[in-house]
Amino acid sequence: MQILKDRIRKDGIVREGNVLKVDSFLNHQMDIKLFNEIGKEFKKRFSDVEINKILTVEASGIGIACITAQYFDVPVVFAKKSQTKNIAGDVYRTEVQSFTHGRIYDVIVSKDFLKPEDKVLIIDDFLANGCALLGLAEIIRESGAELAGAGIVIEKGFQIGGEEIRKRGIRLESLAIVDSMSVDGGVKFRD
Amino acid sequence: MQILKDRIRKDGIVREGNVLKVDSFLNHQMDIKLFNEIGKEFKKRFSDVEINKILTVEASGIGIACITAQYFDVPVVFAKKSQTKNIAGDVYRTEVQSFTHGRIYDVIVSKDFLKPEDKVLIIDDFLANGCALLGLAEIIRESGAELAGAGIVIEKGFQIGGEEIRKRGIRLESLAIVDSMSVDGGVKFRD
Repeated sequence: MQILKDRIRKDGIVREGNVLKVDSFLNHQMDIKLFNEIGKEFKKRFSDVEINKILTVEASGIGIACITAQYFDVPVVFAKKSQTKNIAGDVYRTEVQSFTHGRIYDVIVSKDFLKPEDKVLIIDDFLANGCALLGLAEIIRESGAELAGAGIVIEKGFQIGGEEIRKRGIRLESLAIVDSMSVDGGVKFRD
Repeated sequence: MQILKDRIRKDGIVREGNVLKVDSFLNHQMDIKLFNEIGKEFKKRFSDVEINKILTVEASGIGIACITAQYFDVPVVFAKKSQTKNIAGDVYRTEVQSFTHGRIYDVIVSKDFLKPEDKVLIIDDFLANGCALLGLAEIIRESGAELAGAGIVIEKGFQIGGEEIRKRGIRLESLAIVDSMSVDGGVKFRD
């Protein structure tokens, strides 16, 4: 997606440790016009798939998922991150290791909002080691719902996540795949 | 806002301890069509005010803020909750006590995304004791930006937050104000 790549080149900041800061438009301040272009692009790429629900994970996936949902005309469910083991109620739960924060947390979704008849599109801002995405896929599997695919805004192509997801036969659409990046050399995208 | 009140009556669940569960449409599963009606209503109520940025706080405010932002044609910034004291970078920070989770956390916003020239509308899903909203107002004050007002989806009118906010002269628009509620008797709204 060209306007996304252009924007990453213009406003993204590469930091030591393979950190790509895009918080001026994607995951702290959010450019809602860009989100609408992203939502349209996800709809285009998944136009052949039946989808009745979007699943994302707090916090930075929520805005993109909600804007995208308008193009699919479906509700959004966001999985909650929890560091306590004592959340009340009947939930699906899985453990996720965060690349960014270097810690393990639980991700939970109420059983009320994922049902066997659901056809679910996962939307998230980043794909790096794939743990969050695999966690959401595991929750969908447990619920008996169908995983229709996953739409990612920025995939770090040099980390293992994308390969792991594709190897499992999950349909993955990443709008920008970063093949390499450096503090001096900027960002190189996959064609 | 009548369709919101109707929806709360239909799908909201009152639990012991003044808990109003609206997670089937507002803050876990999100009804994006309803969010669009909410966004339109906020735009109507704040149509006389100059606004160039919406500020909310993760996680459940983000979806409502993003959909609402489309009616104002402005970007959204979401404040991040942090339990660590060691977030890198230059941030505004304030302490907030959570009613729902019964704990204290820090709320932070990067100094890059709030400037003295900004005219900020705060959007959030709930107003109860007002701590989150007062925290965001404090961050805006520190940044030198102007607080144009606060739009809340559900105000718990029997808690202190709404009064505290109005007493400070902050323009507050709550789309549904719950005056009382009980497990048996359901929800009573302010006229």
